[in-house]
Amino acid sequence: MREVFQQELYEVQVRLVEISELVLQSIRKATEAFNESDVALADQVISADREIDEAALSLDELAIEILYREQPMARDLRIVVSALRMSASLERMGDLAQHIAQLARYRYPDRVVPDSLHGTFLKLGAQDVLIAQMLTELLRTQDVELGDRIRSEDDVVDKLHQSVFDAVLSPDWTGEAGNTVDVTLASRYHERFADHAASIAKKVQYLATGDWAGADA
Amino acid sequence: MREVFQQELYEVQVRLVEISELVLQSIRKATEAFNESDVALADQVISADREIDEAALSLDELAIEILYREQPMARDLRIVVSALRMSASLERMGDLAQHIAQLARYRYPDRVVPDSLHGTFLKLGAQDVLIAQMLTELLRTQDVELGDRIRSEDDVVDKLHQSVFDAVLSPDWTGEAGNTVDVTLASRYHERFADHAASIAKKVQYLATGDWAGADA
Repeated sequence: MREVFQQELYEVQVRLVEISELVLQSIRKATEAFNESDVALADQVISADREIDEAALSLDELAIEILYREQPMARDLRIVVSALRMSASLERMGDLAQHIAQLARYRYPDRVVPDSLHGTFLKLGAQDVLIAQMLTELLRTQDVELGDRIRSEDDVVDKLHQSVFDAVLSPDWTGEAGNTVDVTLASRYHERFADHAASIAKKVQYLATGDWAGADA
Repeated sequence: MREVFQQELYEVQVRLVEISELVLQSIRKATEAFNESDVALADQVISADREIDEAALSLDELAIEILYREQPMARDLRIVVSALRMSASLERMGDLAQHIAQLARYRYPDRVVPDSLHGTFLKLGAQDVLIAQMLTELLRTQDVELGDRIRSEDDVVDKLHQSVFDAVLSPDWTGEAGNTVDVTLASRYHERFADHAASIAKKVQYLATGDWAGADA
């Protein structure tokens, strides 16, 4: 019986890694579509979002089935409840990748951001991709040091996000209102993407260290 | 034993209503602070956010204690798991109210939005307050018809949100880049606030009708 249960917990972990991989593919394609104005790539991200949503829903159903059947206690219960929260965050990360791709689609054949911010958004995109890679690896290996690294990479994203606002609010900014809207939303989507990854990382770390209040936050 | 458990489920519901009331107070004050440039009110919202976070965390701890102790099955299990998700949404609604208040604080003594959009943001604020009121009432009464009304009020918010972009992108828009950023973020915060309420409403409705996949989404 316990062996079956351990197998089920392992299945939950495998599914989280799979969803994280889908999110990684989406953010990789979305940021490339965004930065290079590649509408075909943007469309791939937009249609792939349903797959992420379905995978997250299916994981939730599995987790709830396990709660029914196995009535897990203590740490096992925490793992299953945390999995429900992580799947919600991953699903939201997929949505944000889709929003980034949609901006690329709306502005096609133009680029979403003016040349002066192209470099900053290349960095923002690369950070989100890096963070999604680390998150996938963290979920796969449970190596909690990766959690610290994700949080420090998230700090880099916050600084880049702030620098976008600094640029837009400087006297040198010559963008039209439409550019300003796009840049503001795009920067916010990149920032929220990294925030969700940092929040998942915190849960994995707290589960490993046994601090339930933190995993729950 | 079952009586104790029913008492505990009732306690979960009471706590959800309490948090929803805190969120209602926050969004009411935040939108007034935002529209009237009332910095004292904005500060109240900003310091009250910790209270919402703590109430949500404390509800999560209660829900998880119930999972441990009572090992609920079927519909009872769904209620407890849904409560965890609803508390996460309410906590996020509190964050968004705080973001709206912070914009008021940053721009004080100026108003955040130019006169041309003042009326639209009054409507957006009133919609979010109305939706938070309905949500509190829905959580209190479990009257599922309120869920439909919340969703239709959320559609109104989406249209207002779209009209903000239409205004900013029209040739008549004379706002500076800073105004454009503020208006874009403010509109997005109002829209996400209503989205979360609609998502909680969907969960309450699905719990009432027994469609677990929907409650889980």
